Amino acid sequence: MNAAARFEPRDPHFEQRVRASFARQAAMATIGASLESIEAGRVVIVLPYATALTQQHGFLHAGMLAAALDSACGYAGSTLMPADAGVLTIEFKINLLAPAQGQRFRMVGEVIKPGRTVTVAEGRAWAIDDAGRERLVATMGATLMAVTGRDNILH
Amino acid sequence: MNAAARFEPRDPHFEQRVRASFARQAAMATIGASLESIEAGRVVIVLPYATALTQQHGFLHAGMLAAALDSACGYAGSTLMPADAGVLTIEFKINLLAPAQGQRFRMVGEVIKPGRTVTVAEGRAWAIDDAGRERLVATMGATLMAVTGRDNILH
Amino acid sequence: MNAAARFEPRDPHFEQRVRASFARQAAMATIGASLESIEAGRVVIVLPYATALTQQHGFLHAGMLAAALDSACGYAGSTLMPADAGVLTIEFKINLLAPAQGQRFRMVGEVIKPGRTVTVAEGRAWAIDDAGRERLVATMGATLMAVTGRDNILH
Amino acid sequence: MNAAARFEPRDPHFEQRVRASFARQAAMATIGASLESIEAGRVVIVLPYATALTQQHGFLHAGMLAAALDSACGYAGSTLMPADAGVLTIEFKINLLAPAQGQRFRMVGEVIKPGRTVTVAEGRAWAIDDAGRERLVATMGATLMAVTGRDNILH
Repeated sequence: MNAAARFEPRDPHFEQRVRASFARQAAMATIGASLESIEAGRVVIVLPYATALTQQHGFLHAGMLAAALDSACGYAGSTLMPADAGVLTIEFKINLLAPAQGQRFRMVGEVIKPGRTVTVAEGRAWAIDDAGRERLVATMGATLMAVTGRDNILH
Repeated sequence: MNAAARFEPRDPHFEQRVRASFARQAAMATIGASLESIEAGRVVIVLPYATALTQQHGFLHAGMLAAALDSACGYAGSTLMPADAGVLTIEFKINLLAPAQGQRFRMVGEVIKPGRTVTVAEGRAWAIDDAGRERLVATMGATLMAVTGRDNILH
Repeated sequence: MNAAARFEPRDPHFEQRVRASFARQAAMATIGASLESIEAGRVVIVLPYATALTQQHGFLHAGMLAAALDSACGYAGSTLMPADAGVLTIEFKINLLAPAQGQRFRMVGEVIKPGRTVTVAEGRAWAIDDAGRERLVATMGATLMAVTGRDNILH
Repeated sequence: MNAAARFEPRDPHFEQRVRASFARQAAMATIGASLESIEAGRVVIVLPYATALTQQHGFLHAGMLAAALDSACGYAGSTLMPADAGVLTIEFKINLLAPAQGQRFRMVGEVIKPGRTVTVAEGRAWAIDDAGRERLVATMGATLMAVTGRDNILH
């Protein structure tokens, strides 16, 4: 994946903007996800394991992984957008590489290609066990759209 | 999409099996999703709108849509699998076509191509407003794997 | 998939426009693909089997299927775009359902959701044998972008 | 992407096997693609620009990029498979990041997660101009299947 450092943000206040937007994502609070870090082009979200989020075998449900990874990718894209732009996900694809077992999960979203209208990002989800060992459990490719001039889609 | 009627299930008790497995998906209870119907090769899940499931603009979070669609596609595949097989999602892709606004959402998962090991399914998510009008808000393409002989992955 | 009839084209001359653009796609001539039909929101391309297009087992190479399906989806989207717009593929996903064996292949691209900037289309590839029997061998989901005001990307 | 070095191939002769299989892919000869390098879990393919491979704006057709990237990903997976396994692509997704303009293209396929049945790989396509400058033009995520015991699908 990319070294995020090479991206030049257009909005110097991207971190506050992303933090405020994430706080309005009720779905993230519902599943217990929180922001670990925000850099230009890179956002990390942490999700503790919870039985309330499992599928039938007791693993984290793929959709819950996808939800947190989608937010990580979307906000990674948002860090590079203008201050007045909202971000929408056009599409994403997720590959589930291994059963999502662990004490907690770490979702890393990174911008591959920023664009005026369309931005492409990639995500990695790592399962972390009690001993702190990490295992790659999912990869995501996401296409994002910057939306401006629509009052109901801001940030 | 396909007329599901042409598929011949290998397990005559697929409906009970899917119903029991869905009941063990804690994530579906957490988001409030329920089974509407189960046929050979086709499963419908209903998800009421809830502010607890929203993203920053008040629409249903794409990950919540994806979670319910993934379950619809996975269980559609499961209906055609042998009685002793567990179903895992290898990957899925979701396209978000319109903001997920509505009173409730209807997720239809259908098998496109069943297989001994790999099954391909497609999903459609419809938003339904107070007047009962439906609007297509997302499409999914999913690849599923039938897993047998692993005690921790059953049904 | 959709009944294409419900789409209202913005450019009454979409058929000539698509036909002229397809004629400029040298890649389609190279692989031997031709247009079968053009309707508003729906384009069909035919590709005869040729050993020059095979992978190592003698089946049609997945990339050749993808190329013709991508053109079918892209031009399906183009039929609904304004006369001065060029169409670019943002991304596509293809599922290979069965070995691509046959005398010829029929690629159907259909618009699922047209948009001012972003259009979503789906494709189906059918293998046709000597007796005329059809078999679904691939499905595609594609995201397209309408590009205007760039002289090097017209139609 | 991954450092390929950490993968332990099961077939010590993977390089000859991949080279022989690639030589049987008539589609690669047709488009002019050649193997640049083969390592355990990583394969690089080079494709010179040719007007015969273009879409309507004179860029390389997305399907031609996809064909070479699919082969790079598939053979990257194949390097880690047993000597008697054939490799089939289950699905791939490609994001087109920039118009595919250049003197030649370099496709890098790398395994993200090898598996007994299912392997996940990622691809990157770089356009290289006359001055040797590289630009990332496409990313791919591919799911591959190892097939054994079928005489018509070997290597």
